[in-house]
Amino acid sequence: MSTLCVPAQVPPVAEDCEQLHKAFSGWGTNEGLIISILGHRNANQRKCIRQAYAETYGEDLLKALDKELSNDFERIVLVWALDPSERDAYLANEATKKWTSSNQILVEIACTRSPKELLLAREAYHARFKKSLEEDVAYHTTGDFRKLLLPLVSSYRYCGDDVNLHLAKSEAKILHDKITEKAYNCDDLIRILTTRSKAQINATLNQYKNQFGNDINKDLKADPKDEFLALLRATVKCLIFPEKYFEKVLRLAINKLGTDEGALTRVVATRAEVDMKIIKGAYEKRNSVPLDKAICKDTHGDYEKMLLTLIGHGEE
Amino acid sequence: MSTLCVPAQVPPVAEDCEQLHKAFSGWGTNEGLIISILGHRNANQRKCIRQAYAETYGEDLLKALDKELSNDFERIVLVWALDPSERDAYLANEATKKWTSSNQILVEIACTRSPKELLLAREAYHARFKKSLEEDVAYHTTGDFRKLLLPLVSSYRYCGDDVNLHLAKSEAKILHDKITEKAYNCDDLIRILTTRSKAQINATLNQYKNQFGNDINKDLKADPKDEFLALLRATVKCLIFPEKYFEKVLRLAINKLGTDEGALTRVVATRAEVDMKIIKGAYEKRNSVPLDKAICKDTHGDYEKMLLTLIGHGEE
Repeated sequence: MSTLCVPAQVPPVAEDCEQLHKAFSGWGTNEGLIISILGHRNANQRKCIRQAYAETYGEDLLKALDKELSNDFERIVLVWALDPSERDAYLANEATKKWTSSNQILVEIACTRSPKELLLAREAYHARFKKSLEEDVAYHTTGDFRKLLLPLVSSYRYCGDDVNLHLAKSEAKILHDKITEKAYNCDDLIRILTTRSKAQINATLNQYKNQFGNDINKDLKADPKDEFLALLRATVKCLIFPEKYFEKVLRLAINKLGTDEGALTRVVATRAEVDMKIIKGAYEKRNSVPLDKAICKDTHGDYEKMLLTLIGHGEE
Repeated sequence: MSTLCVPAQVPPVAEDCEQLHKAFSGWGTNEGLIISILGHRNANQRKCIRQAYAETYGEDLLKALDKELSNDFERIVLVWALDPSERDAYLANEATKKWTSSNQILVEIACTRSPKELLLAREAYHARFKKSLEEDVAYHTTGDFRKLLLPLVSSYRYCGDDVNLHLAKSEAKILHDKITEKAYNCDDLIRILTTRSKAQINATLNQYKNQFGNDINKDLKADPKDEFLALLRATVKCLIFPEKYFEKVLRLAINKLGTDEGALTRVVATRAEVDMKIIKGAYEKRNSVPLDKAICKDTHGDYEKMLLTLIGHGEE
């Protein structure tokens, strides 16, 4: 499902470090060389490069990149170079600091990662920010948004496939009752979405459709401008159909008047090694244009090259 | 701080297994032999014994103990024999199933364990019960109790010693304002107690005392019969003064008309390897009688022997 292309023969770590160091030296920076190395190494390989680079040159690779690069290209290289859990911690921290009710990044991190990956992100958050993720989320959010986001980022869902069908039926009814009453912030609705396993929620939402005819997200669209409802829909999508969620983030980022590079960078950097192949398929199906073409049209230069490298352009 | 006494020369695991198997064989059970082995092995050693026992005799040691033993003695041996994280998962599961508003066990597990230990308990919960701890807590509790317990059991607090004194001052004021308004269930009060690190909460409560004169728990005693207030006080105590909390649980368990064996067993089995020495000190200071004397007076037989063994009676 990954679109990352790692060469069959990966050079020794020391050589990668030397090449990167060369890319930074002298007059101007060799961006192409940076892309050709970092854009073709997996998380573990990048981690080894970062460690070896620090040992060899006495400087954190990220610091060096930060000094040499700029703008969108800098951002994607830095975000990509981070270890996935550290990257999630970093993105989540940014999201808490500039949190607005339309910001869905916390939901994205809490719900599209596996329960174990979310724990690792919380651990990385401790290490990097000397506090806990939930502490910052609770501090920077209020009201219904806090009520939903706090248990989402604190969750450690059961990740087995076991499903209790009886429970699915009864909880589908609870969800439907509450949505019909427009009690979107009620304890039970939030409890079900924030604590049940993904498999169990999937079963519950299937029951919902069977018993009441609609997809739950259709019923959660009573007021399309309500941002809390939008967050609930994002929660459902991230839990059950992450590829559809990410396709839509990409679509909105690209179709905007002026590309939303922040969203584009985030989705490509966080999903390239996970499920970008599926997201690309979903994108082409929904937009009748391949993702790489859309990216070519909307971006340029080294930023464009790095995006295309990560989504595996020209590799299939 | 542990009161567990492990002999300088621990017999090989195979020998421990053989002796335990012998203790179960023939006419009657040799309880003394069980105590002399399991009561003198640490968590890792007990784990090895359990594994080796299953491999050698094709039966889980806990199953065998369950068949052979009975009543309070059975309970303490079984609870003690469990791996600490599995034991916490087991106790927490029991607590969710028979949860009442006076039940403080979930608070105890969520707040006296280290953040990492709580995570391990949540992991063990997945493995044993095929669902998540927070899922069961959310399902079995309601209202204010859920509002407090759910973030407590889901917490993964930062565990460093870094303290933000400015924040401590401002949050002490928030706590005092809310308590003065009797808004005990307000979002901010719960947010502070459920997400901040123990060191930070300690600093905040020191500021509380400096600025407003009272210990927070004194101010949280406006209505001594209110069970939600009692739970808030237990939260504070478990986070900041666990030894005082456990001393009180023991005191109430022993001073009751008819001992509360459930509480006595739980505290001894969960703290023997952690901080029972400090708890014993606190007990003697508060009750002017050593804990082992109090236990001798209130219990008898093999149950008494096992309790005394675990609290290191006669070993100092």
